[in-house]
Amino acid sequence: MKFSLAAAFLALPLAHGFSSLAGLSSTTSKTSSSQLHAGVERNPNFGKLAGGYLFPEIGRRRNKYLEENPDMADRIISLGIGDTTQPIPEHILSGLVTGASQLGTKEGYSGYGAENGQARLREKIASTLYNDLISPDDVFVSDGAKCDIMRLQQMFGAGVTSAVQDPSYPVYVDTSVMMGQTGTQNSETMQYDNIVYMACTAENGFFPDYENAPRADVVYLCSPNNPTGAAATREQLEGIVKLCKERGSILVFDAAYAPFIRSEGVPKSIFEIEGAKEVAIEVNSFSKYAGFTGVRLGWTVVPSELTFSDGTPVRNDFNRVMSTAFNGASNIVQNGGMACLDPEGLKEINTLIDYYLENASILRETMESIGYKVYGGTDAPYVFVELPESLGGSWDAFSMILEKAQVVTIPGAGFGPGGEGYLRLSAFAPRESVVEACDRLKKALA
Amino acid sequence: MKFSLAAAFLALPLAHGFSSLAGLSSTTSKTSSSQLHAGVERNPNFGKLAGGYLFPEIGRRRNKYLEENPDMADRIISLGIGDTTQPIPEHILSGLVTGASQLGTKEGYSGYGAENGQARLREKIASTLYNDLISPDDVFVSDGAKCDIMRLQQMFGAGVTSAVQDPSYPVYVDTSVMMGQTGTQNSETMQYDNIVYMACTAENGFFPDYENAPRADVVYLCSPNNPTGAAATREQLEGIVKLCKERGSILVFDAAYAPFIRSEGVPKSIFEIEGAKEVAIEVNSFSKYAGFTGVRLGWTVVPSELTFSDGTPVRNDFNRVMSTAFNGASNIVQNGGMACLDPEGLKEINTLIDYYLENASILRETMESIGYKVYGGTDAPYVFVELPESLGGSWDAFSMILEKAQVVTIPGAGFGPGGEGYLRLSAFAPRESVVEACDRLKKALA
Repeated sequence: MKFSLAAAFLALPLAHGFSSLAGLSSTTSKTSSSQLHAGVERNPNFGKLAGGYLFPEIGRRRNKYLEENPDMADRIISLGIGDTTQPIPEHILSGLVTGASQLGTKEGYSGYGAENGQARLREKIASTLYNDLISPDDVFVSDGAKCDIMRLQQMFGAGVTSAVQDPSYPVYVDTSVMMGQTGTQNSETMQYDNIVYMACTAENGFFPDYENAPRADVVYLCSPNNPTGAAATREQLEGIVKLCKERGSILVFDAAYAPFIRSEGVPKSIFEIEGAKEVAIEVNSFSKYAGFTGVRLGWTVVPSELTFSDGTPVRNDFNRVMSTAFNGASNIVQNGGMACLDPEGLKEINTLIDYYLENASILRETMESIGYKVYGGTDAPYVFVELPESLGGSWDAFSMILEKAQVVTIPGAGFGPGGEGYLRLSAFAPRESVVEACDRLKKALA
Repeated sequence: MKFSLAAAFLALPLAHGFSSLAGLSSTTSKTSSSQLHAGVERNPNFGKLAGGYLFPEIGRRRNKYLEENPDMADRIISLGIGDTTQPIPEHILSGLVTGASQLGTKEGYSGYGAENGQARLREKIASTLYNDLISPDDVFVSDGAKCDIMRLQQMFGAGVTSAVQDPSYPVYVDTSVMMGQTGTQNSETMQYDNIVYMACTAENGFFPDYENAPRADVVYLCSPNNPTGAAATREQLEGIVKLCKERGSILVFDAAYAPFIRSEGVPKSIFEIEGAKEVAIEVNSFSKYAGFTGVRLGWTVVPSELTFSDGTPVRNDFNRVMSTAFNGASNIVQNGGMACLDPEGLKEINTLIDYYLENASILRETMESIGYKVYGGTDAPYVFVELPESLGGSWDAFSMILEKAQVVTIPGAGFGPGGEGYLRLSAFAPRESVVEACDRLKKALA
């Protein structure tokens, strides 16, 4: 339904729900013809933000292509945004359905829960996923990792400096800009002033060289990495924990893809590293492996050992953000989270991960068979493809592949200037779509 | 389960889920005995915040009382936090259950949705609740009003000044402090510097006199009001919209209790007021009348007509916050929201509201029968009771009532210095608890 002035001003008599529940009287709001500007200055940090958020921008370009080529609508295959496509398996689903249906009974009904999540879920996360290496008291259950990153930024405030991998998940940089930690974007380097960009290239195994970068208060590290698919080794993580300790930095470790790690000895949590509790926060999510991208459930671990320079436990301030500016993850969804961590749920999750990793393997082999250099896709659901210079920039390659093969990808440059020259392929797609996309990519890129 | 060092370091062999899904290796994280402080300065705004967030503080005091009086555990009745207690009715429940169960099928599965909510829900909100007075494009569906207030604050940034009703829902002030808009709290007045407190007393009908208050960039107004229960008249709202227009202020109108309005002619949305689209944002929620306090669903309306002083539509920047720092309300829950707005759902909601308003009426009558002066509770689920001076401060009265009657209330001072001398009673409770609480209050206060 599009907004229509006629509907707004003439739709009388009033609709049922309207008159009985929230009935507005017939003296309606009228827009004056002369636009009036409120006397409130725009937050200058929002003026610094370049373009829109990456993934809606991808959607806009895809939709624009479809407007111009409406006959292609059925042919589009998305290997773009990392969005799960497989139905939620039986046991986990039963947790969600029960979570909903019990709200209809007097005994099963629940209202507000603790803002940091149900105690039983925090305990189960700590015991099942962390083998009690961390305390349930340090777990904050939430509606997802993206939202938690913003809440961490609210806690850190405008006064900190941030370091990010380049390329990286765009939320770290965008929220730093929104919070006022940065200067403006340099139109040549495409980097924001006052953010430390740590190049992650094939040469350094996509792991940042923090030692030779300027010190930052907060260091964002994602492993397995989005978008490069690189999973950091124990030695690499030991190194960066040590460096963060020496330099007095807080490490924000994004482990949203941890269960995709299948290689022996690769850490799945930063808290496997000695001393990490004194320097690290871990952000995590059920989204990618339980099919919860639309369901919304994540968590963040803030160890009680971690303090600011004045001795205040970081956990205290994060708790203040959670209790004041958040109201808990949905009780229905938390019940689904409990089911994820039952033995049957864990088994179902492993089956889903197998499925997506097999997709990643097919994507890897395809791109290699064309002669492209390929990274990631073994301990991660993302395949990072090095583009030949002949294809032009990564946004050019994105457009060419969309037009010739009707396959949506993500240009590396969307993840920061360091991603230029690469393309990210997501393994989150139905198998038949992946196979079909690979056929088309072979033809389009041959 | 409490955190135990022994469990963390000795629990080998590893648990099932742990080794297969997110298995941490046996080289575990060790806390050094000397506490190490990260070299990151604490966000100074968090240091300004007084105490904890109000409602957890109420919970702490209640729990402390129960620790000292464990035999009273079964006697406690909460008329404290405004938390729904009645099960979710049949039709709305079926929306939630279907929303969950369809995720188990290939056809019904959905992953990420639009960050601003499903189009069909935004359209239904605009048509059913606003009679298409507003555009679906101006509706942002979210996980609740509290979270949206923080997201609005992120958008406004540190540079704005805020005005609040005194007393008011504590989130407006607390998030203003967290964002750095304020100075420190004055230990005598208990007010933060650089916030405009607009006294709302029985004398002015609990409606703020913005005209005689200093100008602020953002004015927070809640009607029906939490905690006073006052519902603003059309004339009052016309006045404040006019003032905001003249003074170039943005009005953030919190309408979370709107459907509780039963009096004729009292506006349920700020957009019933002429010209409001150029000055107002409306925050709203399904929590209180659909029983969704734990389910989590709300929305915010940012009219496209509203701009910052440089002409930037406010909606654009709010959309940037929603898309960058939020990932959509749960798809399960949005399906429940659709059911709320069906004719059957609206009828169920009206029945729930009847129930809670009857509770409010019982509370009103009881307190009046004891001889107390009582406000609110007719177009709102809160009864605001004027305390005789003999009871001391409102925190004293809170403690006395907890100890003598085992009834949890909220002291008016918890809502700001202007709430001193009052007590808020919530009508969100089972009927039998309300009746029992009233008996006990009569005895305790007689």
